Amino acid sequence: MQLNNMLKFKMGWIQVRGLHTDVVLSSRIRLARNFSQRPFPHNGAVKTLKATLEASFEAAKKTAGLAAAAYLKLEEMEDLDRQFLIERHLISPEMAKNYSSRGGVVGDKEMLSLRINEEDHLRLQGLEPGLSLSSLWKALNTLEEELARTLPLAFDEKWGYLTACPTNAGTGLRASCLVHLPALSATRQTAKLLEELSRIGLVVRGFYGEGTQPYGDFFQISNAISLGPKEEDIIDNIQRVLKSLVDHEKESRMILARPPHKSKLEDRVYRSLGILSQARSISFEETMQHLSRLRLGVSLGWEMPVDLHQINELLILSQPAHIQMIEGSELDAGARDLVRATLIRKKLER
Amino acid sequence: MQLNNMLKFKMGWIQVRGLHTDVVLSSRIRLARNFSQRPFPHNGAVKTLKATLEASFEAAKKTAGLAAAAYLKLEEMEDLDRQFLIERHLISPEMAKNYSSRGGVVGDKEMLSLRINEEDHLRLQGLEPGLSLSSLWKALNTLEEELARTLPLAFDEKWGYLTACPTNAGTGLRASCLVHLPALSATRQTAKLLEELSRIGLVVRGFYGEGTQPYGDFFQISNAISLGPKEEDIIDNIQRVLKSLVDHEKESRMILARPPHKSKLEDRVYRSLGILSQARSISFEETMQHLSRLRLGVSLGWEMPVDLHQINELLILSQPAHIQMIEGSELDAGARDLVRATLIRKKLER
Repeated sequence: MQLNNMLKFKMGWIQVRGLHTDVVLSSRIRLARNFSQRPFPHNGAVKTLKATLEASFEAAKKTAGLAAAAYLKLEEMEDLDRQFLIERHLISPEMAKNYSSRGGVVGDKEMLSLRINEEDHLRLQGLEPGLSLSSLWKALNTLEEELARTLPLAFDEKWGYLTACPTNAGTGLRASCLVHLPALSATRQTAKLLEELSRIGLVVRGFYGEGTQPYGDFFQISNAISLGPKEEDIIDNIQRVLKSLVDHEKESRMILARPPHKSKLEDRVYRSLGILSQARSISFEETMQHLSRLRLGVSLGWEMPVDLHQINELLILSQPAHIQMIEGSELDAGARDLVRATLIRKKLER
Repeated sequence: MQLNNMLKFKMGWIQVRGLHTDVVLSSRIRLARNFSQRPFPHNGAVKTLKATLEASFEAAKKTAGLAAAAYLKLEEMEDLDRQFLIERHLISPEMAKNYSSRGGVVGDKEMLSLRINEEDHLRLQGLEPGLSLSSLWKALNTLEEELARTLPLAFDEKWGYLTACPTNAGTGLRASCLVHLPALSATRQTAKLLEELSRIGLVVRGFYGEGTQPYGDFFQISNAISLGPKEEDIIDNIQRVLKSLVDHEKESRMILARPPHKSKLEDRVYRSLGILSQARSISFEETMQHLSRLRLGVSLGWEMPVDLHQINELLILSQPAHIQMIEGSELDAGARDLVRATLIRKKLER
């Protein structure tokens, strides 16, 4: 449990400054980059992987954004620490499984970070609260230019940046937003909307990205294609679609908040508050579902013992590895459910 | 809505003085009696029914227990008033359906009452909190002797008191207790126990007696046979069985209140508190189920914003006709659910 000091970090991306934070929890961009003349990580010898890790650390230390960052080698950590990094969206579940010679660099407030020897040699990640892909792109662009000064990044005039998986080639860019769509879900519009999004080149996933279920009406929406359009065009496109999705969600919330729907919604929202305020044992999945309703209530201006930021924080802290970090010991699922319920009850006490 | 002043009555039988009130909410005895030389009510002409009603009123006024009672003619009431009397356990659902020339006499705190022209001409009813059939029998015996001084009650040396339905002949006595068996239910012992009770001549019914479902683990237990044994023996028998049932329920509660069951039970009980404290709409059936859990929590000494008496009161006040009386207007089911939720929330606010 080496990382428990990270519990005290202020995660910049769960703040509620920024645009449309009642619908968009966070924006994220990642850039996939690879060293030229070097096999991709899944084919790399241990020696090569280690060289990539060290070279990346050295390059990061020379950047403005990551000079004072935390430099993490996954193989020096316990399982729980790696799970914790997944829950912070700082490494992928695959990296935690195959962690030898893998590493990460985590900047101030976790807003800028690197993943080293994931699928690609290097993945640059930026996270910000609200809908703010454009400003995020500027920050990441700067970081990339700084890294490129010392690292030999593979770039082809025709194919752009080369990546381990061809679907990431070209810009190597994936822009995504974590959105909360309780009203669109309640009015059964999500299935149709998500289908439309996929037709215009966007992908929808659950809270933890690829292969995860959408609990509590939280969705990750990102671009499917990184080859072809320019970076700015990809970002403009997703930002524009997200803005329209935000409007649609907000309209649906206003409809739900008026008769004849209001009383049913109120009942649902406040029952969730009641359960979270009193439960003695609760799973993470159930927690997400209830917090989702509280979030909706808060966004409608209803009286609640917590604000949006506190709800975002509870979403993060309620995750399994976080619960164990907070408790200071490894716990099975049943024991975690007890600790989680106690944590939530305390946060909801006014 | 003539009876809304009865809302302010203190119902004696929902107090928590008496024996084993954490398991036995109330004890009840009813005595079926009929006038000699007069057809039973279902065969009676209107004129005869009215004569029975008036004669019974006159006789009751001469008794010590009912001299200052409320004298009610069901045909002079609104539907809602009759529903209210059912919910107070003062008349039967059949009387409310077929109310012409039917009536009731309701004594102080509703502890002694008469039903006139129900299935039999006269049914004497006594209600007391806790397990107290013996003292109740004395009070009812006194009332019956007083009534018999002026009313010609049909009695046969061989068959005892004659009744409309032969199953009530003999003593005409039914003793019953309203019991709360959440721990026996949680440990799946009720089905077997209820089967055993029926083998020894007892009948188990739901909250409202015959033909009603047991919600919230509330059961009415009464004697099946009234012909044969003496009154005292019927009462001694049911009192003895009930005492053993109470012990069994209390033992099961203690087991549930210890590890490994405790944490699961705590979670269940407090979630019910959370839902009742925050719901904006709730049915009577769901209310009973949650109040049942609160009752169990209180009986185990757990911290709760209400005591046993307040829970008993909420059980009564949450019933559909009561909700409409409280609100002062007739309401459909959806509107009642909103008023009920508000009432409960207020009572649970500390």
